[in-house]
Amino acid sequence: MSSQTQTRPAPEPRNGVNTPTLFATINAVGEQPALAQFKFRATNEWKQGTHSRSTMETFSGAGGDHEHAKRFFYDGDHPAVLCGKDNGPTPIEFLLHGLASCLTAGIANIAAARGVTLEEVKSTVEGDIDLQGILGLSDEVRNGYQKIRVNFTIKGDAPEEKLRQIVEQSRKRSAVFDVLTNGTPVEIAVNAG
Amino acid sequence: MSSQTQTRPAPEPRNGVNTPTLFATINAVGEQPALAQFKFRATNEWKQGTHSRSTMETFSGAGGDHEHAKRFFYDGDHPAVLCGKDNGPTPIEFLLHGLASCLTAGIANIAAARGVTLEEVKSTVEGDIDLQGILGLSDEVRNGYQKIRVNFTIKGDAPEEKLRQIVEQSRKRSAVFDVLTNGTPVEIAVNAG
Repeated sequence: MSSQTQTRPAPEPRNGVNTPTLFATINAVGEQPALAQFKFRATNEWKQGTHSRSTMETFSGAGGDHEHAKRFFYDGDHPAVLCGKDNGPTPIEFLLHGLASCLTAGIANIAAARGVTLEEVKSTVEGDIDLQGILGLSDEVRNGYQKIRVNFTIKGDAPEEKLRQIVEQSRKRSAVFDVLTNGTPVEIAVNAG
Repeated sequence: MSSQTQTRPAPEPRNGVNTPTLFATINAVGEQPALAQFKFRATNEWKQGTHSRSTMETFSGAGGDHEHAKRFFYDGDHPAVLCGKDNGPTPIEFLLHGLASCLTAGIANIAAARGVTLEEVKSTVEGDIDLQGILGLSDEVRNGYQKIRVNFTIKGDAPEEKLRQIVEQSRKRSAVFDVLTNGTPVEIAVNAG
């Protein structure tokens, strides 16, 4: 694997992606798989009602601890129609942003790796949810989205089929797409008192 | 169901939750389940490299279309160690915020419904990911989180066991917990050219 990845030629930087650095990173991780172990984290504090705020600041990976360029804060709340004060989007809307931004980051990286210059990548993501689940009105209705639809518009200096293949490759390697479609184990511990 | 929910007494407002309004909403949806059909959405636009920005503005539900109190914008990017410019957290970190804020909103609502006044709800959420998946270095490593851990600290005017039960009930009715643990179908359509 390592000799194979080391000899892969790195295309020039494109789409704002430093492709040689990206390839060097992939090669370094190929040499030393322990570097691939990452931990991302958020802390959250309840404010009032359905309003809470998360902070994202540190993460671990590539053999060390890191800080984001700045501390990021995000509010979550319910809208008025769901008895909240709309201090932020609903928590479940953030999954849609996570999905769109993950697929789009992958598209930019993959296009650069394939020598395709992108002009535009836009997407809309919509999730259907039946609130009878979370409101406790039905045990047959699931709590979460029943379906999510993503619509991409992608323009670049490549034939339509090649652009489609870039989106498809991004889907195949998307961390968020994987979690949202396949699920992941979640452990909850409680310190109460 | 409707007569049962209509006769359920609504506790007084608590924790910033207007409990009578919340109960009236649940009763209204119990009477007219079509009101429970919601669609949440985000639009995303690629900026450069792995940086993109999502907008959340409108959603549908309760029989109509709605706008959030304001237009919400969120950036997603990769950090420098992953060849990005760190204009925002990584897309997959937003899942952690979604999970924490969903569980916390539920805790506040359920505590209010059970007559418990909360003093503090804090949580940390951490996800483990092995980047050999998304970097294409291993087909045996999944792309997404391998595990997510949530640690809650909850304080209020109830015995420890009752506080734990509130967290557990929130988990049972959390939309984000459901999607992250069970997955949901995602359809991707592409308009390329």
